[in-house]
Parts: sequence; C-alpha cells; structure tokens
Amino acid sequence: MSAAKRVGILISGRGSNMVSLLEAMRAGEVPGEAALVVSDRPDAPGLAKAASFGVATAVVPRREYRGRPREEHDRAVHERLEAAGVEIVCLAGYMRILSPWFVERWQGRMINIHPALLPSFPGLHGQRQALEHGARIAGCTVHFVDAEVDHGPIIAQAAVPVLPGDTEETLAARILEQEHRIYPLALRLLCQGRLTIEGRRVLVRDEQIDLPRSLVVPDPSS
Amino acid sequence: MSAAKRVGILISGRGSNMVSLLEAMRAGEVPGEAALVVSDRPDAPGLAKAASFGVATAVVPRREYRGRPREEHDRAVHERLEAAGVEIVCLAGYMRILSPWFVERWQGRMINIHPALLPSFPGLHGQRQALEHGARIAGCTVHFVDAEVDHGPIIAQAAVPVLPGDTEETLAARILEQEHRIYPLALRLLCQGRLTIEGRRVLVRDEQIDLPRSLVVPDPSS
Repeated sequence: MSAAKRVGILISGRGSNMVSLLEAMRAGEVPGEAALVVSDRPDAPGLAKAASFGVATAVVPRREYRGRPREEHDRAVHERLEAAGVEIVCLAGYMRILSPWFVERWQGRMINIHPALLPSFPGLHGQRQALEHGARIAGCTVHFVDAEVDHGPIIAQAAVPVLPGDTEETLAARILEQEHRIYPLALRLLCQGRLTIEGRRVLVRDEQIDLPRSLVVPDPSS
Repeated sequence: MSAAKRVGILISGRGSNMVSLLEAMRAGEVPGEAALVVSDRPDAPGLAKAASFGVATAVVPRREYRGRPREEHDRAVHERLEAAGVEIVCLAGYMRILSPWFVERWQGRMINIHPALLPSFPGLHGQRQALEHGARIAGCTVHFVDAEVDHGPIIAQAAVPVLPGDTEETLAARILEQEHRIYPLALRLLCQGRLTIEGRRVLVRDEQIDLPRSLVVPDPSS
C-alpha cells in the first residue's frame, strides 16, 4: 500500500460533493488526504465547510482575471495546487471551463462528476434535461477530464429511476445521493492506482464482478 | 376492462423480441392478441416462430419495392395491418426506416425497442456503441415511434452494468434479457390504455411508485 495521495478539490459553490470526498478521506475509506480546496469565488459556502474539516483553502478570484486569457487564471490555480503538493484534482461544482493547458497538465489525474448518465445530457442542468426529455432512468457519472465538456473516459456511473411527479428538485436530490456514493468510490480507485485508461475505456484492476443486476422503470408491478 | 387490443408486429429477422411479446400475450400478461406478424424479408426466421404461435403472418418483400418511394412499401404493409384489424403496432427488429406517412398514421399507437439508454447511442449497434464509449451502465428503451430514429417519447427503460471483460455479445445478451422484460411491460401499459403523451413525457396512469432503487457500477465493494 503506497502513501496517501494528496488531493486537491476545485469548487465554486456549496461543495456538496467536496464534503462527501472529505468525509470519505477522513473516514479512511479513500487512501487520500485533502491537501487543498481552491475556489474561484470568494463567497463560495464550501470554503467554510472545507475549513471546518481542517483543510487548507485558497481563493483565486475569477474577477481578477476578467478579460484575460482563461489560461492565466488556470496557471494561478495550478501554482497553488503545486505548492500544496497536490497529485490528484477533483472538480466539485467548479463552474469554469478549463483551458487546454490545464487539462493537459492534469491529464489522467483530474476527475469530474456530472449529474447525468453520460453521454446523455452533458452540459448544464443534466437533471432538468433528463426530466424534460422524458427519460425514465437518470443518474450520474464520474469521469476523467479531457478537452471536451463532460466527455472524458468514464470511471463510475449510477442509475436511478425518474418517478411520477418528480420535479427537477426531487430528481436532483435522488441523483445527488448517488453522486455522494460514486465520487468517493471513483476517487478511492484512482488513489489506489487501480485505474488504467485505454482509449475511451477505463479498466479497474481487481474489479469485483458482482452478479448481474438491473434497474427497470416503470416498476414491473405497475 | 376493455377487450383485448389487436396487435401487429413488424420484423425483419429472428424476432426475439416478437417472441417475448407473443409469449406475454399468450400467458395473459398483456391484454392484447397478436393479429398479424409482417416481415419485409421472406427469409426472416421469425416468420416460422410466429406461425408456431398460431399467429397469421404476411410478407411484404422490400425487394419488390426497390427504387420506389419508401411510402409505397409502407402503404402495402399498412393495408395488411388494416385488413387484420390491427390497433397497435410493435416494431421488433424491423430494419426499415419508416416513411413520415406511416409514422403519422400510427402516431401514439406504434412502439419500438432500442438496445441503449436513449438518448445515448441511437442508431445501429447501440450495445457496441456503449462498449466503445466506455459506458459503465448500458440498457434498453421502449418508446413511441416519431419521425426521428430512436427518438420518440419514452415509455420504459432498463439499466444493466457493463462488466469487465464484456464483449459486444455478452453485453448484448445482458441487455436482451431486459428487453424481454420491458417490451411486454410497455405493451401491457399501452393495451391497458394507461399511457398519455405530454410533449416528450409519457405519463403512466396508476403507476406504482416503488421505493427508490439504484444501480451503481463498479460495485462499491470493488
């Protein structure tokens, strides 16, 4: 077993997925330690939460980089991550599109979570898109970050039913519960060094092959 | 309870999904009776299977319509369906793109099954597309047929894991097992008159709201 990986988390808001990662690391379920939380917004509520976990925080305000190339902001974020010895980056509601420079720098070491079963419903409001499309199964995806938005190789997914009467809020809450399961799961596998990227596929070393399961919607007893 | 609906099934090949529908109707699980199976290929193995269920069959060979507008073939199929008193049409591996005329004629009364969690992976070889994309959750969808391929309002979906070592064949078999569950389920709901289309959403009257379930891949115990 190698030493705990140093993990950096990028946020812009409340950092709900950040909290699930911090809890999993604190509980020893993930062989990683939170080295730094970076926000591009000084008022992100997640900053105080990170501090309550005793995790160092930094703010690189996007405002200060207004009108300048995106990469300049990314370089400032990158400097903070490097200074903190970060080895793995997790995006947790980070609302900035990353420059190619940053993406390349963290290729294979940066992951993101998206509230849809990719490749369905990339982009903003994946839950609302699923609802408006009339999907009966929705979900979430953890993936490596590549140059396209919500596109890189997929590490983990979870599926949930869309239920009658669902609103964007109730569906988002059902998906969020699963986000809080698969993001720590994916980070654990990455910290354990068990992931290999082959083209678009992610191979998991020593993956447990469980009995085939399924999720059927509507319930067949309907 | 109204009388059994008269169901027509269109095939081009072995008709594996046709068989699951015929079995469900014969078992009384679906309040429908198979009125006619139509193939556009004289050599479709599904024709003999349909006959073994005692169901009338017809062939409208696409060859005879080569070089003529698609609608002409569709009109010939339509005549057969009308003559058999068909009220609901199920596509079961029917490998022809339908003319707008035919689609409009059966709007809200014609359903299709596709081996992917739409809107992901429409078109041919949905299973292979999922595998090559590196999806960890795959599945199948029953939907009303509209003017676009694999696109209409969704009635039912089922999700399954993509497992390590899966080939197109093993994944297709796992999905097919679920196709054989959700296609009879969707046909039953349609024959029972319980489906309403609102925009892109399909409402199911008296849908059983089961406890939230989920499907997580990889297995969290991995």
